[in-house]
Amino acid sequence: MKVLITGGGGFLGYRLAQALLKKGTLVDVEGKQEAISQIVLFDMAFPENADTRLKCVKGDLTDRACVEATLGGDTNAVFHLASVVSGGAEADFDLGMRVNLDGTRGLLDACRKQAKPPRFVFTSSVAVFGGELPEVLDDSTTPNPQGSYGAQKVCCEYLVTDYSRKGYIDGRSLRLPTISVRPGKPNLAASSFASGIIREPLNGAVSVCPVGRDARIWLLSPGKVIEALIHAYELPSSTWGVKRVVNLPGNTASVGEMIDTLRRIAGDKVADLIQIKPDPRIEALVLSWPARFRNDRAHQLGFSADKDVESIIRAYISDQRIKV
Amino acid sequence: MKVLITGGGGFLGYRLAQALLKKGTLVDVEGKQEAISQIVLFDMAFPENADTRLKCVKGDLTDRACVEATLGGDTNAVFHLASVVSGGAEADFDLGMRVNLDGTRGLLDACRKQAKPPRFVFTSSVAVFGGELPEVLDDSTTPNPQGSYGAQKVCCEYLVTDYSRKGYIDGRSLRLPTISVRPGKPNLAASSFASGIIREPLNGAVSVCPVGRDARIWLLSPGKVIEALIHAYELPSSTWGVKRVVNLPGNTASVGEMIDTLRRIAGDKVADLIQIKPDPRIEALVLSWPARFRNDRAHQLGFSADKDVESIIRAYISDQRIKV
Repeated sequence: MKVLITGGGGFLGYRLAQALLKKGTLVDVEGKQEAISQIVLFDMAFPENADTRLKCVKGDLTDRACVEATLGGDTNAVFHLASVVSGGAEADFDLGMRVNLDGTRGLLDACRKQAKPPRFVFTSSVAVFGGELPEVLDDSTTPNPQGSYGAQKVCCEYLVTDYSRKGYIDGRSLRLPTISVRPGKPNLAASSFASGIIREPLNGAVSVCPVGRDARIWLLSPGKVIEALIHAYELPSSTWGVKRVVNLPGNTASVGEMIDTLRRIAGDKVADLIQIKPDPRIEALVLSWPARFRNDRAHQLGFSADKDVESIIRAYISDQRIKV
Repeated sequence: MKVLITGGGGFLGYRLAQALLKKGTLVDVEGKQEAISQIVLFDMAFPENADTRLKCVKGDLTDRACVEATLGGDTNAVFHLASVVSGGAEADFDLGMRVNLDGTRGLLDACRKQAKPPRFVFTSSVAVFGGELPEVLDDSTTPNPQGSYGAQKVCCEYLVTDYSRKGYIDGRSLRLPTISVRPGKPNLAASSFASGIIREPLNGAVSVCPVGRDARIWLLSPGKVIEALIHAYELPSSTWGVKRVVNLPGNTASVGEMIDTLRRIAGDKVADLIQIKPDPRIEALVLSWPARFRNDRAHQLGFSADKDVESIIRAYISDQRIKV
């Protein structure tokens, strides 16, 4: 069982790799757990001191020859996480199209050249939704992205579904909520603040929040996302059927609630490090995203969310061994 | 006012060109009718004796340099009709992806290089719908294509919308019903029979229908499609707003009704030329398509369907000057 993780040098990809190392197996097409023989991380950069059991391949997703060589011909499992983030795809349209759309397309075509159609987990996003939205979205809500990132993601979902229908891959697309709390530094994602307003204050630094207290987001913790990626992979093809996309469960939280919860857990001194300075460019994008879902299909498929906003914050504190 | 019609050598494209020659003008961005100075048809083949007022450019949509050279830099209006048809895209996956997805993408990028963002009318299809469908589809029904053609079309719709949002084009996508009655020869479209069962018998030839009498389709006549293309073009950008896609109105007809109507109009001798021989490959595709819509938005925007199935058949008889 050879596994490829694109974006494997990134936070989620590397955490997935660690989880797979610990698990040691993944189901094969007959549903039996099979030992993972190799985990290949494909990315432009990797953590220092990466686990030596992982094979790190430095490359660009838009380089088709490199992608094909990395897959080899014997890859059984693909977790496709690599992506130009929302803010980046909006700022540089051509880069977003090239990486998020063409890159995924190239990866899908390379998958067709494997000995057997690989199982393929694609990380889409709730950013595919936007515009006039119902108060609560559900499995029938039509994607209507208000950013190029979301447009690219929804196109890829349709490709993953069609390549699956043709039998070229056995694909599954997960629409990820905003992931919080990410460790490390802020990134270009318009949702970066959803981690920053928790992470920076807990690390004693000021965090400037570009959206107001009333802005609501749909949140999931990194731990739950990793669980979802592996669960999505392990579900039998027949369980997915012709519907290859699912909205992941999450928690609705306003920026105000997140700040108040942080204050309750870590005290005023920490929470007072958050400064709200709305940035219209970021706010327009974030406010176009959905904040509340009814996740019937996801629950039926066995996916689950964090208990509440407090447990999302406490998961970060525990992961990072922070003293509060 | 320079106009480009891709697929301009095909039946609909050429008919659109003729309609534009007759009309002589199209609205400019201020909403004023402006004289059409040039109509360029881009295609791989053209009708013999094409009108000399039309500039025919032979080329392949996948040839980016050729597409850019054809647009020039001064094109104001693009009608993008060129496409590998449904049956063709299903039989040759790579060709369909290359022409329908990459070709459209190349054309959109070439549009960005025009002096002003061109107005862009894209012909999508009701083949974007499929799978478990409600009895009556409406403007909120989520595309769920069961063929690669539909998957490619829905991806292009999202691209047209996003390129419009970015201000690179002023796009509008029309989901065309099955067009009937097309003159000429059968083609690779899985819906080819919807014209064949009327056209061949009226021309004294046998028509083999690959779907049963109960199969229902959503029909629109060529004349009404041309009207819709021009109407879609002339609607102000503000009328479309952020919603750049619309399901065109049509008529629901079963194969049985079509045959019975033909019998009423043209007699038993003609109708008896139809032989029903179901082909599972075609039937699977056709039965996955929707056959009934509620078209609130289209009606609001001023689009309309034919009066009934009889008038669709009579339009063909009149266009072709057939004696019945």
